[in-house]
Amino acid sequence: MATLCRPSVSVPENVITMEETLELARTRHADHPQLPLALRLIENTGVRTRHIVQPIEETLKHPGFEERNKLYEAEAKARVPAVIQRALDDAELLTSDIDVIVYVSCTGFMMPSLTAWLINEMDFASTTRQLPIAQLGCAAGGAAINRAHDFCTAYPEANALIVACEFCSLCYQPTDLGVGSLLSNGLFGDGIAAAVVRGQGGTGVRLQRNGSYLIPKTEDWIAYDVRATGFHFLLDKRVPTTMEPLAPALQDLAGTHGWDASALDFYVIHAGGPRILDDLSKFLKVEPRAFRFSRSTLTEYGNIASAVVLDALRRLFDEGGAENGARGLLAGFGPGITAEMTVGSWVRRD
Amino acid sequence: MATLCRPSVSVPENVITMEETLELARTRHADHPQLPLALRLIENTGVRTRHIVQPIEETLKHPGFEERNKLYEAEAKARVPAVIQRALDDAELLTSDIDVIVYVSCTGFMMPSLTAWLINEMDFASTTRQLPIAQLGCAAGGAAINRAHDFCTAYPEANALIVACEFCSLCYQPTDLGVGSLLSNGLFGDGIAAAVVRGQGGTGVRLQRNGSYLIPKTEDWIAYDVRATGFHFLLDKRVPTTMEPLAPALQDLAGTHGWDASALDFYVIHAGGPRILDDLSKFLKVEPRAFRFSRSTLTEYGNIASAVVLDALRRLFDEGGAENGARGLLAGFGPGITAEMTVGSWVRRD
Repeated sequence: MATLCRPSVSVPENVITMEETLELARTRHADHPQLPLALRLIENTGVRTRHIVQPIEETLKHPGFEERNKLYEAEAKARVPAVIQRALDDAELLTSDIDVIVYVSCTGFMMPSLTAWLINEMDFASTTRQLPIAQLGCAAGGAAINRAHDFCTAYPEANALIVACEFCSLCYQPTDLGVGSLLSNGLFGDGIAAAVVRGQGGTGVRLQRNGSYLIPKTEDWIAYDVRATGFHFLLDKRVPTTMEPLAPALQDLAGTHGWDASALDFYVIHAGGPRILDDLSKFLKVEPRAFRFSRSTLTEYGNIASAVVLDALRRLFDEGGAENGARGLLAGFGPGITAEMTVGSWVRRD
Repeated sequence: MATLCRPSVSVPENVITMEETLELARTRHADHPQLPLALRLIENTGVRTRHIVQPIEETLKHPGFEERNKLYEAEAKARVPAVIQRALDDAELLTSDIDVIVYVSCTGFMMPSLTAWLINEMDFASTTRQLPIAQLGCAAGGAAINRAHDFCTAYPEANALIVACEFCSLCYQPTDLGVGSLLSNGLFGDGIAAAVVRGQGGTGVRLQRNGSYLIPKTEDWIAYDVRATGFHFLLDKRVPTTMEPLAPALQDLAGTHGWDASALDFYVIHAGGPRILDDLSKFLKVEPRAFRFSRSTLTEYGNIASAVVLDALRRLFDEGGAENGARGLLAGFGPGITAEMTVGSWVRRD
């Protein structure tokens, strides 16, 4: 059975603190009628620091969609290979052992996707399958795990590589002045994560059953407005309320597997924002402490989109992992509104 | 085993003929130093008619990336559901029988992708997996078949729905004046295709083994330059030479399956252009007639990107299909340069 091994994570060297974010909001939007609300929402995120690919002065400029995409490509090429190499090393595999690369990213657009360049640059086999996904947003981390799981279920000897590369700071839109945009400006960060799903062997989460759930009639709650200036992120104020309908979907998936989603040993949850974690804790009836990995990725990195679940899982590994056989739940949430969920148990090779 | 059922295909009502295309090139680019070459290349495509979502006068305008994406969304919403419904009817399935939707399209960008809207609009189950792929270009038709095949291999009772929606005319860039662009302006057409991959039962191609192949160091031969004006298609003049390295990849896949790619009963090949078909015929040592389905899709519709392989397969169905047990090869080619290939045998339910 497929095992999701230790994720490798990297965040850029430029740091912006909560205080700096608030100060920027105050100075740039001094006349904004809803500034106090925006400041309160940003403070409530609990995001203490975020890491971004450019210094903040550069980030605040908008050099155009074309230049931003070129920057996305250059930064991805400069940063992604080392993250992949560490994930491969941790999984004790070579590039030649990988059968499929699932590359997820919603913050830059390339065709072909980075997978073609990676195969050439890092000497993956020419027969490696490429599965680039650009349109699942923050849910794509969970989707990548699930599609890698499916692939290894179809081909039990195969290994999958997952890469999530998100430079949310390259989607900053200075002309977007709605409260949702001001909040987003203080919430999202940049980060890259990679992890291997081994068909055989490996230490980590043995993936057992996955599922997807779309909350009906919410497809415009999280969306991109695609314009000449690039991707404009639209965030409906009802998004924080989505854990009430999603908690039963998580319960259903666990229940179908004979498990109780309220009584698992570990949780790796997309940290979209603080309310997501608070509410899910409430509706799943699990202690807030169960979401500590998600909470710390949100606090230290902000919402790094599809890379969040992999970073939260990395933190579980850093804590020493779980007991052999410990049962857990992973879930990514994103546009749709879509949940990509999986249940699995901890396995140690040693 | 998974069976790829009859594809449903729809092309828009606005038609442009080869003569009209040549006349447009002559009048719009009268002073172009390479006009004679461009005209010759367009004539050589053999594309007699293409179908486009807007009248040609509208197509030639560029209202901006934002408006084009809105048009993409509106046209997709207006046209895709009926194509899907026919594919479901042909496969004798209901929306509630579908476990995953693989939606491929490289000619418009939405997040969330159309999958979320389709699930809501057509009453697919909320648990339907969404797999949107925007970055595999013309190879995405083959990739969609292959990932649907993998999914049904992992879950033998599952059914997958494939949708390819391509409005290439919405990527027309009036300021792109290279010979490759002028040729592309006369080559690509619009079309929508959908097909079901049934995990059990069904008439069509029983999918048996799939594979992918990337020609090393060709990742910039077919690419999008992403700009404020949208996707600018870059076509290297070496692309028509790619069948020489890809034919052995097709041979390898068939050979691994114990088959000879030169001696199969049917071929469903991406009709990227006439040289692709001529060369593949030569390098695989198969009669040109074997590619008649691809040839006729190219002649009647132009290159409709990821929808080509599904339309070529539809033409095989229209011819009455193949004998029970007949062996065949399907292949999509696109940016990377990537081939997405599969071998399978014809199965009749009756």
